[in-house]
Amino acid sequence: MRDLSALFDPDGVAVVGASDDPVKWGNWLARGALRGERRRRVYLVNRRGGEVMGRRAYRALGELPEPAELAVLAVPPAALEPTVDEAIAAGVRALVVITAGAADGDAGGARDRALAERARSAGVVLLGPNCLGVFDAGAELDLVSNELPRGTIGLISQSGNLALEIGVLAAEAGLGFSRFVSVGNQADVEAAELIGELAAHAATELIAIYVEDFRDGRAFAAAAEAATGAGKPVVLMAIERSEATARVVASHTGALASDSAAIDAACRAAGIVRVHAPQELVDVADGLLRARAMQGRRVAVLTDGGGHAGVAAALLQRAGLELPRLSDGLRAELRAELPPTSAVSNPVDLAGGGEQDIRSFDRTTRALLDSGEVDAVLISGYFGGYADYGEAMRRDEVAVIEALAAAARSSGRPVVVQTMHPPTEAAALLRRRGVPVFRAIERAVDVCARLAERGERRPEGVPALPPAARAVTAGGYTEARALLAAGGVPFVAARTVATAGDATAAAAELGYPVVLKALGTLHKSDAGGVALGLRDAAELGAALADMQRRLAPAAFTVERMAPLADGVELLVGARWDARFGPIALVGLGGLFTEILRDVSVALAPVDERHALAMVAALRAAPLLSGARGRPPLDAGAAAGALAALSRVAAEHPEIAAIEVNPLLVVRDGALGLDARIELA
Amino acid sequence: MRDLSALFDPDGVAVVGASDDPVKWGNWLARGALRGERRRRVYLVNRRGGEVMGRRAYRALGELPEPAELAVLAVPPAALEPTVDEAIAAGVRALVVITAGAADGDAGGARDRALAERARSAGVVLLGPNCLGVFDAGAELDLVSNELPRGTIGLISQSGNLALEIGVLAAEAGLGFSRFVSVGNQADVEAAELIGELAAHAATELIAIYVEDFRDGRAFAAAAEAATGAGKPVVLMAIERSEATARVVASHTGALASDSAAIDAACRAAGIVRVHAPQELVDVADGLLRARAMQGRRVAVLTDGGGHAGVAAALLQRAGLELPRLSDGLRAELRAELPPTSAVSNPVDLAGGGEQDIRSFDRTTRALLDSGEVDAVLISGYFGGYADYGEAMRRDEVAVIEALAAAARSSGRPVVVQTMHPPTEAAALLRRRGVPVFRAIERAVDVCARLAERGERRPEGVPALPPAARAVTAGGYTEARALLAAGGVPFVAARTVATAGDATAAAAELGYPVVLKALGTLHKSDAGGVALGLRDAAELGAALADMQRRLAPAAFTVERMAPLADGVELLVGARWDARFGPIALVGLGGLFTEILRDVSVALAPVDERHALAMVAALRAAPLLSGARGRPPLDAGAAAGALAALSRVAAEHPEIAAIEVNPLLVVRDGALGLDARIELA
Repeated sequence: MRDLSALFDPDGVAVVGASDDPVKWGNWLARGALRGERRRRVYLVNRRGGEVMGRRAYRALGELPEPAELAVLAVPPAALEPTVDEAIAAGVRALVVITAGAADGDAGGARDRALAERARSAGVVLLGPNCLGVFDAGAELDLVSNELPRGTIGLISQSGNLALEIGVLAAEAGLGFSRFVSVGNQADVEAAELIGELAAHAATELIAIYVEDFRDGRAFAAAAEAATGAGKPVVLMAIERSEATARVVASHTGALASDSAAIDAACRAAGIVRVHAPQELVDVADGLLRARAMQGRRVAVLTDGGGHAGVAAALLQRAGLELPRLSDGLRAELRAELPPTSAVSNPVDLAGGGEQDIRSFDRTTRALLDSGEVDAVLISGYFGGYADYGEAMRRDEVAVIEALAAAARSSGRPVVVQTMHPPTEAAALLRRRGVPVFRAIERAVDVCARLAERGERRPEGVPALPPAARAVTAGGYTEARALLAAGGVPFVAARTVATAGDATAAAAELGYPVVLKALGTLHKSDAGGVALGLRDAAELGAALADMQRRLAPAAFTVERMAPLADGVELLVGARWDARFGPIALVGLGGLFTEILRDVSVALAPVDERHALAMVAALRAAPLLSGARGRPPLDAGAAAGALAALSRVAAEHPEIAAIEVNPLLVVRDGALGLDARIELA
Repeated sequence: MRDLSALFDPDGVAVVGASDDPVKWGNWLARGALRGERRRRVYLVNRRGGEVMGRRAYRALGELPEPAELAVLAVPPAALEPTVDEAIAAGVRALVVITAGAADGDAGGARDRALAERARSAGVVLLGPNCLGVFDAGAELDLVSNELPRGTIGLISQSGNLALEIGVLAAEAGLGFSRFVSVGNQADVEAAELIGELAAHAATELIAIYVEDFRDGRAFAAAAEAATGAGKPVVLMAIERSEATARVVASHTGALASDSAAIDAACRAAGIVRVHAPQELVDVADGLLRARAMQGRRVAVLTDGGGHAGVAAALLQRAGLELPRLSDGLRAELRAELPPTSAVSNPVDLAGGGEQDIRSFDRTTRALLDSGEVDAVLISGYFGGYADYGEAMRRDEVAVIEALAAAARSSGRPVVVQTMHPPTEAAALLRRRGVPVFRAIERAVDVCARLAERGERRPEGVPALPPAARAVTAGGYTEARALLAAGGVPFVAARTVATAGDATAAAAELGYPVVLKALGTLHKSDAGGVALGLRDAAELGAALADMQRRLAPAAFTVERMAPLADGVELLVGARWDARFGPIALVGLGGLFTEILRDVSVALAPVDERHALAMVAALRAAPLLSGARGRPPLDAGAAAGALAALSRVAAEHPEIAAIEVNPLLVVRDGALGLDARIELA
């Protein structure tokens, strides 16, 4: 790991392009840099010299009385490359390049590579170009355009405005940033390196990321896996590639977004929590920072009114969480403390009892958490606004909050609060005591679901890539079959033949009925190049003659007819993703593939245990395990075939996609019936 | 329709149970009533007499100098019934009963019925009991516990706290209530009647509803359909029945919630927009009130930064909206007005150009809306906060807002704004000009999706129930088959037989292969009471002898063997919902029914056109229309069978559920292969 200390806590900062104009970057950066002046020397640089913000402006970095470890550059595009040279010559150790756009317009990629090379060869760290700056709360480093809230989130972002929005929303939730790094074009410093840096940063408790370009997606995922393993949750806002998103990303930074399934696979492998919007990011961070995780899916809802109880219960069940019926003992315990109109099943509805005795909130919560019958308590509705009833009620509400927080801490089970009131002191106190608070019940429920996922799902791990095998150069059916069979994928018995005589001999050896396939046509079945269920030599001969006449194939295969009616057809495959490398996939094959879109995806290679979990995660999994009185099929064999295919794919970066479809899963095995390769 | 004017704009109001105690209902109501005193006489009533709030407190309604049209009762449960009698005797025309809980505890239902009868026989309207009051902004009637924002939403709610929460959220969105009616136990006035009343209320532009108990769900839906038809959108927050929600609703008001599919079916029939939480309700109301509807799914995204562009685009596509690529002509038009770094595909990203020339927001929006290439423009990100740059920018932002609103109006296409800033003047102005504004992009996108749905989906209509037919008294296979066949559902040819000889004769007539079924066993196939594909008289005789020995059935049917391999098996059925009456359903049959859970549900009866739309809405519909080179099947015949079954179901309220499973759909027809009835 490189030493990035000069980027986050330099002994001196030079702002190059410092300006008095209050709508210019050079002004914002100078003001921010000066906020840290009691901790480090700050120099303002402007090629016109004179004074900026009432201080001496140096004409060049070389004029400074002593070198600054960090220079932040807000200079015109044409001046960028000479200024970088000047900074290196002046002895900087880190460069933050705000300047966007290459001097020559479209050659940004080449310009960026040149800048990165110059910096690296001089041992200088370069952030950007086209970045929004860097912020370190503990080091009082404030080289950004806007003031940011302080807290424990380390934010890496490729968009300035999204980072500002996340900051606004985080502040509203009583959260803020330990560090913020705007990565810009990632010419030198990339997100993966920064994840490692934040994982080692004591003041950072959670890493939040917005990136459009993952660069080496495996390295990115591996860094996130390490951070997660070190107890720092990683929350990723990533946009998937699609026609329109690809357009914007391409036009915006020249980056290619990875498609959503590959991103999800990387997230599962690394234990990354994926979100899709800034508010969701902040809400999930709130839950993870304050409530950590739930050790199960059982939630008790506590309200002071049936409407909130019903709404919360319905949303929790839609989110896949459980509202267990409480035991008779626990219900009796709750009943003894609550008014007769209350409901003590789950939800627990105080039914106005909260106004009569506000302490029923914490007594009930404590009883629920300590019972072990639920993994979390969600309080929804009026709570958080009782101060409106006067000073006595306000003081009581504070006491309830302290007791709720203590109950959550001592039980190790989260309390999550949704309050219908606009921001109140009560909500702020709950947050300070580690209880996440949400305005909208749907957000509170979503966070509970994320906490439950976090508790039950261990990261699968980012698999290492095997060494590349000898590259494949042809993608025909026989080649695909041979490659996969050598890798351990079972196929139906088959013989390649050229003549009718060879075909008959092969069929006699394999046993009738057989299948005849014409080789060398891409879509064999569409072209009439497949004949199924040939029952004897006469049928085989006729089929062969017919194909010979119509298709004149280079060769044929004769294959034993598989017991289609006794099995289920799956599709197993892999593709090489530009960012994340080989991605393995299993889904229902045949007619239903496109209708169901029911697939499991993972970073390849996958081992057999993981492959079996992928098969079991299909909606169609009951078809394999014996739905409606059918015999169970050999899911293990299907998993074995998937694992074997994924290993083959991971050894062949030259293969864009490889697929066995169908893979027929029967009671005592799995059989590949067709295979194909697409070369990159 | 009853005259409810005394409930919303009485000439005098009496508050019974008026109190000086600031934490009592009698105090809140008295204060609220007095706020309307310049419009009507207000009397405070307290059985202790003396003074309340510095005014004379009458001891009883009979003491008032002249009758008040409306009395609101906040009296102890034991005093409720005598007070209602007193009010009727005193000449009130409407009663609002806040008092909850019956004097005798559990007999609330009986108490409520008695109250409603007394009121009705006196021609008095009774709201509640157990309600939170009534509010009419235009009539200055304010009989609720809290002050509510004024606006154009008519709110009907069965929960007080949810109504308060909706009020808080509505106020934040610059919205409010024309009327609010808390229905409580609906002893007399029910939600359906109030929907009709609000549909005719000029100041109400949108009707929002939270109910736990629909009462007569058909009447409710029909009232909502009429309101929707009159141009007033109906937004319904309803919780579905499920184990836990059923528990809370039962324990809370003794009501049964309808299950979610039935609610959704009623919503589609009536054109009701369904939501699941208060924030969603307010957001959707915001969109419907300010932006009405989109006439298609095509959205242009406009941002000043690539991050917001990418996030918005990805979310829109996840929500099923389209981001069309803009025409070359339109792109050239936009390009001419924007800086070179901007992106003029879709999303349109000003890439910092908004700061340089804020008017590019409205010029671009106008060009996009007027092009006809999109149905709405979604502006996301920094816009709404440019006032921070100083007074000149603030004035310019106001000009942009006026121009955006004008462009939306003149084009008839919505502009929707998401702004990253906390509440600003700009957001408030946008709202006043009819542009919906959201803090979270996911909320803005969800509202766009709702607007698109509203534009493309006409309500299906709430079907009238046919007169009940002669009740069925037995639910066996032959009875089900006979009933459905008489109603027009096609079945495979079959003969009921008692002996082996009859069976052979029937088979000879039908033609082999045949199926033999033992009658009188509920799960025929599980019990070994079905033999398929019997090829000749010998096989038929052996199967019959075997079943005779094992099952000794009362009779058999012999049926022609259906061409299973040539068709697709559907399930068509109906159930009688306690709230909404008969509900028709179609789904994929066989093994996939439970795995896919792929069903279309509608209020029954459905006609053939509607039934065909239900079939087409299945995810599995491509299986019928000829997926992957298969021949298209007779979806029209499937729809005919569904429509016929739905008519039969609607004529038989004594049938809890009726089902044909499978219904085999082939190239030239559909054939019921099995049928069952469950009597209520």
